[in-house]
Amino acid sequence: MKIAIAQLDYHIGNFEDNLQKMLRAVEQAKALGADLVCFGELAVCGYPPRDFLEFNDFVRRCQASVDTLRAASTGIGIVVGAPTPNPVVEGKDLHNSAYLLYNGEILGVQHKALLPTYDIFDEYRYFEPGREFRTVAFKGKKIALSVCEDIWNVGNENPLYTICPLDEMMPEKPEFILNLSASPFSYEQANERIHVVRSNVQRYGIPMFYTNHVGAQTDLIFDGGSLVVSPDGLVFDEMPYFEECLRVYDVDEVRTGGRSNEQPKDKIKLIHDALVVGIRDYFRKLGFKRAILGLSGGIDSAVTCVLAAEALGADNVQVLLLPSQFSSDHSVDDARQLAENLGIRYDILPIRPVFEAFEAALQQQFAGQPFNVTEENIQARIRGTLLMAMSNKFGHILLNTTNKSEMAVGYGTLYGDMCGGISVLGDVYKTEVYALARYLNTLPLGSPLPSGAGAIPKNSIEKPPSAELRPNQKDSDSLPDYDILDRVLYQYIECRQGPRELVQTGFDEALVARVLRLVNINEFKREQAAPVLRVSRKGFGMGRRMPIVGKYLS
Amino acid sequence: MKIAIAQLDYHIGNFEDNLQKMLRAVEQAKALGADLVCFGELAVCGYPPRDFLEFNDFVRRCQASVDTLRAASTGIGIVVGAPTPNPVVEGKDLHNSAYLLYNGEILGVQHKALLPTYDIFDEYRYFEPGREFRTVAFKGKKIALSVCEDIWNVGNENPLYTICPLDEMMPEKPEFILNLSASPFSYEQANERIHVVRSNVQRYGIPMFYTNHVGAQTDLIFDGGSLVVSPDGLVFDEMPYFEECLRVYDVDEVRTGGRSNEQPKDKIKLIHDALVVGIRDYFRKLGFKRAILGLSGGIDSAVTCVLAAEALGADNVQVLLLPSQFSSDHSVDDARQLAENLGIRYDILPIRPVFEAFEAALQQQFAGQPFNVTEENIQARIRGTLLMAMSNKFGHILLNTTNKSEMAVGYGTLYGDMCGGISVLGDVYKTEVYALARYLNTLPLGSPLPSGAGAIPKNSIEKPPSAELRPNQKDSDSLPDYDILDRVLYQYIECRQGPRELVQTGFDEALVARVLRLVNINEFKREQAAPVLRVSRKGFGMGRRMPIVGKYLS
Repeated sequence: MKIAIAQLDYHIGNFEDNLQKMLRAVEQAKALGADLVCFGELAVCGYPPRDFLEFNDFVRRCQASVDTLRAASTGIGIVVGAPTPNPVVEGKDLHNSAYLLYNGEILGVQHKALLPTYDIFDEYRYFEPGREFRTVAFKGKKIALSVCEDIWNVGNENPLYTICPLDEMMPEKPEFILNLSASPFSYEQANERIHVVRSNVQRYGIPMFYTNHVGAQTDLIFDGGSLVVSPDGLVFDEMPYFEECLRVYDVDEVRTGGRSNEQPKDKIKLIHDALVVGIRDYFRKLGFKRAILGLSGGIDSAVTCVLAAEALGADNVQVLLLPSQFSSDHSVDDARQLAENLGIRYDILPIRPVFEAFEAALQQQFAGQPFNVTEENIQARIRGTLLMAMSNKFGHILLNTTNKSEMAVGYGTLYGDMCGGISVLGDVYKTEVYALARYLNTLPLGSPLPSGAGAIPKNSIEKPPSAELRPNQKDSDSLPDYDILDRVLYQYIECRQGPRELVQTGFDEALVARVLRLVNINEFKREQAAPVLRVSRKGFGMGRRMPIVGKYLS
Repeated sequence: MKIAIAQLDYHIGNFEDNLQKMLRAVEQAKALGADLVCFGELAVCGYPPRDFLEFNDFVRRCQASVDTLRAASTGIGIVVGAPTPNPVVEGKDLHNSAYLLYNGEILGVQHKALLPTYDIFDEYRYFEPGREFRTVAFKGKKIALSVCEDIWNVGNENPLYTICPLDEMMPEKPEFILNLSASPFSYEQANERIHVVRSNVQRYGIPMFYTNHVGAQTDLIFDGGSLVVSPDGLVFDEMPYFEECLRVYDVDEVRTGGRSNEQPKDKIKLIHDALVVGIRDYFRKLGFKRAILGLSGGIDSAVTCVLAAEALGADNVQVLLLPSQFSSDHSVDDARQLAENLGIRYDILPIRPVFEAFEAALQQQFAGQPFNVTEENIQARIRGTLLMAMSNKFGHILLNTTNKSEMAVGYGTLYGDMCGGISVLGDVYKTEVYALARYLNTLPLGSPLPSGAGAIPKNSIEKPPSAELRPNQKDSDSLPDYDILDRVLYQYIECRQGPRELVQTGFDEALVARVLRLVNINEFKREQAAPVLRVSRKGFGMGRRMPIVGKYLS
């Protein structure tokens, strides 16, 4: 028996495109002699559909797509994920289901039982867990069908749940396991995924075919890396990261095993590739082509700019250089150099005249008041307004360039440098931004970047970071050094260590109190921030939900 | 036996304040001869604590508060809600529990079984459901302890759940039911709450004492209205809305019944009172006193301004009048008149010079381009920047004045009139804003409003709405009439009707398609909007989660 895995980039709610894409894959799988083709979890509507699921109209369209695929299943089995209305009155209205369609019939439906409801996941908001576990017979073989999280409680390794669906199916002696997933990227995720799939295969002694999504849905990026694992515990195949792919596997060959095809997992390369896909899909799925951003000469905007040029093509990226009276000459030079290296259009718009107009407008109100953060914010907001004006006039999306360290401690101006349709680096700590810059500078980029390697000026990487909003300002005037700050933030945000644990780890008590307070009093800013491309296991956004008026550690 | 209900305004994460407030209530209840005093759900930490619950440090502090209350329970029973670590490895790490403390002991703990995970609720994200249901013995009586949602599945009226916790306890023949709730306000909620409590009491034939929170936690407003219901089905007492209160009830008198004390429930008055509390608590809990907002002469900013003056006192509200070259004279007059009626400080800052500075800055880039929405947005962003500058310099919070109709269809400028720390009217449709204005104008306000009734100029209420961002602009140029628009929006947002259902209801098909598309393509704006004071059963914010790159109906 031959199994095709179709690792595809779906678009939430775009039923027609998703369907056409799957129908093409069905034809391709047929042509390659597959008996069965597997799509991802909730593939008909894309993942996560969120509250669209609360509309009966939306669910009807999902079911219509399943019907169309059923009609197309002549001579080939189709395994696809879709929401299913729950026929029982009690409980949630839907199940999150895997369908096996064949020759116009529904051979089997398996409802997901383990519903992730943590971090970015809200599945119990919509779905009633499945409670029956049966294999599905197909061409004389028994198949264990499963959806995503249902394989994540093997051997009770994941103590979130009290049951293990595959354990329930094993008495029926299935020949292999199919898993339909929508498992979002973080730079640690691929190894975890392999560990989980391998643990299942070793526990049950049968092969598993694991189909993931690829591509980005706003903040969530799906990396693909779909898996075929043999009973010997070797990864028979790991599909490419961040690209669509369809491959066909012979079950007998997979069962025999002895082949290992894992991909390298370099953290910075993975983050790089994820961000490029994140930008590209955000634009494509919203129907936009062109990006704009402000280049300050600093590292964050430089890295964002190179990533945008990679994702959209240099022709589709335009930058503004927006020097104030506090900008150093080298900032403008560094920014201009980068734009020239990339071959992108740049305009220089000094903001001083507009700043002076604001000063004049507020002259009476501000009489006798010293220059302070207010005037810094006005400058940032003038830049935001100029960038948005260009974006509005010419149809760009403004890219936000704030990094995770700044976003964490609120070192940024709401409605100023926090403007933008999507935050590219909001889940990348400052120290990681430097690593990304060095990585970008070693890449033999070629097209779409004419000058390729070394695009980011050395000076942007090496000079001390500064917002340049008052004379001789440095980030280190008001923040701890980034190598310390980032370690505290990682322990607090990703590892959820409290103040006591952080001090026990060896961090200075006053420093810890100060950093945690900064994080907590700035929830109001993050509440209004652009969505952040998620690359870590705890990004800002839907996966981290904090009270704004909370008084904890603040 | 005498039961005290303490309906209090907690502050999320502010353990010390919450504890002191409860200890004072314990003393007060003792002084009034109560045997038992009841606090709300998760009272020790406030509701909803959201992801603070993922920090062990936070949970330890919750438990420390329970310990302090236990030590204070000499001679009086204390019923209080707190998160409890789940001792079982499998499942979520916490329970959402009600404790009965007495004479330094824990007499009983009941874990919540029905975990709301819909709309603004995320309880299954944190909590494992309780599975054991026992009454608690106190002074020779058996008490059925329950937490919020656990009473909401009576007679299987609420098909979200498959069990009914109180059914399980009834074989032990409790004498009365205590329920600890954190049930957020919507203008329909009080009637629903009474219906549910009454249904329970009638099913079991014993009294119920229902304790709610009061006060606002950012977007969520708790209205109080705690209930005592007698077995005859009459509301023995309904505590006041929107204020703290402690009252003591004799169980025997409640059992006898024959008394009805329900409060009137006028939709517009309830919304008004909720918004005043919402503003007041947002400021108080963040440690701010003073508000600023832009007065346009229109109805939305006028209503927001009066509400702010009521909530914070006229001395603490300051406004800017920010006329552009497109503003009509009457707009400035109407705004000035309102400010004078309220006795608040106003400054007039014409934005034209700043606008011209922006035009000059962009002259080269915009050469040959016609005036369009870009220039409208620049004006809105200049206003936002001026308001934020005043806010930054003098420590105000900027109030956002966008209404729900505008927010729904994206009729507003991101980083412009969408600026603000909290959105006052973002859950109030335009037609309801008019009703609110008329209501405000009939109020005998007195202090803190010196001029009281009729503060909003008649002209602001009667003139056709306009953003005044280009010559002779009217909202009706680009939007359907608000009475039709609001009805379509209500059906789509609150009632989750799809396009087919809306057309069947009688709305024009093209209009429905246009309005739904506007709602869906503007998710990106709402993603970056200020938190919205929630007054309906479906507000924008945490309770409505939509994909940004979604292609559904757009």
